[in-house]
Amino acid sequence: MEDLKLALLGFGNAAQAFAEMLMEKEEEIRQVYGRGVRVTAITAPSKGTILDSQGIDLKKVLADARSAGRFAEDTAGLCTRNTLQVIEQADCDAVCELTPLYIEDGQPAIDHIRRAFQCGKHVVSANKGPIAWAYDELKQEAEEKGLMFFYETTVMDGTPVFNLVEKTLKFCRVTEVSGILNSTTNYILEELAAGKEYGEILEAGKKLGFIEADPAMDIDGFDAAAKVTALLNVLMNAGITPADVDRTGIGDITAEDIRKAAERGKVIKLLCEGRRTENGIAARVKPVEVDQSDMLASIDSTTSVVSITTDLMGKLSVIEHQPDLRQTAYGIFGDVIRLLDGQQR
Amino acid sequence: MEDLKLALLGFGNAAQAFAEMLMEKEEEIRQVYGRGVRVTAITAPSKGTILDSQGIDLKKVLADARSAGRFAEDTAGLCTRNTLQVIEQADCDAVCELTPLYIEDGQPAIDHIRRAFQCGKHVVSANKGPIAWAYDELKQEAEEKGLMFFYETTVMDGTPVFNLVEKTLKFCRVTEVSGILNSTTNYILEELAAGKEYGEILEAGKKLGFIEADPAMDIDGFDAAAKVTALLNVLMNAGITPADVDRTGIGDITAEDIRKAAERGKVIKLLCEGRRTENGIAARVKPVEVDQSDMLASIDSTTSVVSITTDLMGKLSVIEHQPDLRQTAYGIFGDVIRLLDGQQR
Repeated sequence: MEDLKLALLGFGNAAQAFAEMLMEKEEEIRQVYGRGVRVTAITAPSKGTILDSQGIDLKKVLADARSAGRFAEDTAGLCTRNTLQVIEQADCDAVCELTPLYIEDGQPAIDHIRRAFQCGKHVVSANKGPIAWAYDELKQEAEEKGLMFFYETTVMDGTPVFNLVEKTLKFCRVTEVSGILNSTTNYILEELAAGKEYGEILEAGKKLGFIEADPAMDIDGFDAAAKVTALLNVLMNAGITPADVDRTGIGDITAEDIRKAAERGKVIKLLCEGRRTENGIAARVKPVEVDQSDMLASIDSTTSVVSITTDLMGKLSVIEHQPDLRQTAYGIFGDVIRLLDGQQR
Repeated sequence: MEDLKLALLGFGNAAQAFAEMLMEKEEEIRQVYGRGVRVTAITAPSKGTILDSQGIDLKKVLADARSAGRFAEDTAGLCTRNTLQVIEQADCDAVCELTPLYIEDGQPAIDHIRRAFQCGKHVVSANKGPIAWAYDELKQEAEEKGLMFFYETTVMDGTPVFNLVEKTLKFCRVTEVSGILNSTTNYILEELAAGKEYGEILEAGKKLGFIEADPAMDIDGFDAAAKVTALLNVLMNAGITPADVDRTGIGDITAEDIRKAAERGKVIKLLCEGRRTENGIAARVKPVEVDQSDMLASIDSTTSVVSITTDLMGKLSVIEHQPDLRQTAYGIFGDVIRLLDGQQR
């Protein structure tokens, strides 16, 4: 059977870690599936575009991207195409949407995925924008064309959340979701609790790579809102967008608030919650006080947790402990493996 | 397609809750699979034996078992057969091993499963004895006969543990497992911490149904040892038995120990651990002090947690919050659904 051929839209840190994981597990994949996974296209605005049906030399492009910040002139298949052209012209079975997130409207990633489905290609998205802003439409397009559409990475890296429900909780109806899903705000609240100043925390966090150049997306709760929207759209057919989330960030939380909460035996956490109510789905992102003895209080630094309540299995929680880029890469990798499984049926 | 036919060995509380779940989801199963699940045999020493190819009336036998403690004389197919005869003679595709656990050697459940495979029947086991004492042999017998063998319930009820790794963490190699897996000891340690006396706790726990008539299996760590053995056998091919676990129960823990630990900011928990070392698999059950801020400290009363570390995904934890019988029933139910999935391939 021929290799599964992938086009990668975006080649940032997560995409690079994914490419490494593909190389690492190449032999094992061949043993299990009798076929490999071949990257036939990569496009990234700052690094260039490669189209190569024979399979791109990942080792070379990783080295070039890391040393020079772009693909080298001697790379086979180096060309100039924009992202939509790559989706249309690449010799591939599936497109991996790994471009930067624009939280305001999920674009241009939504257009990328739409075009991929129009071209008859499966999609793996690590970009939460499309799942938060256009899930129902994209899902329907995929179904109509008989194409696969996976997006495990969008909420908690490679930690099984969507797969958990779909593969291991069959016949369970999800009634409620909650969690601590934004590690930047979790980190900031902890550092505030440790007595540091806001400005100092932001500066140190930026240096460590925990905090974005513009931290508003995290601090104002936009990222958390997009994640809880994705959870609710996929697991509870909510049909909402991040604009429907009752959202409060951590910008107004002071060291004094945290100190007073501690005196009452409480910790402040930015909690995401969604549940079905009489008036439809209610979704909220809000700093709340939890007991120091509560599991949520133990979710420190970059650790995340999602809790899922279902009719048959009550409440389960899944914790991802202090992930690094590899866990994000595994989210993409696991979805690609699902493509292989899906094509085997 | 014909219904999937099941023989239930045992009809205690979990089996009864499973029978209820089957009735509750009967229509939905038919919609998804185009076939139903039919119970054609039930045997339980205290309640009697029923063999009925047409399908046992679950509503009736549940009512009879609950009101009279045994199956009524007017039950269609009521007969006298022992368990091995039921396995041999029942008109069924699969056997559900739901008999009481004998922790010392896993018998007679191991013989039940062996006989089922000899008779060409798939097996779902909620009994951890066979997985702890004879996993490799039983797994090999199933594979040789092309039969399915599922046992999700054995470690943490219906919470995905084995399914989690098999279905959602593909290509991940498990390097370490740990957890709080015995809720009786967790409850006792908490009650001791709250200042109650050992005898008083045991008496109250027995009344509430948390604590067995003979609590030694829990208190001495045998149950926890069987669970960590099951985890290691299935997830890390350990090939060990509970006798290989370095086991310390909570019998020697005093209220004074707990108080002193609390003064140091610590909580005592009965922790199960297993990892690969240079000398093979090391498995341990032991009361350990964990920080009050540690996730493990938040695992209260009947809540359980399992943590799984893998090469690709680092450390993940799954928490089952305060389960009741329904979660146990779902473990069996989910495995039966896997039988339906497996036969669809």
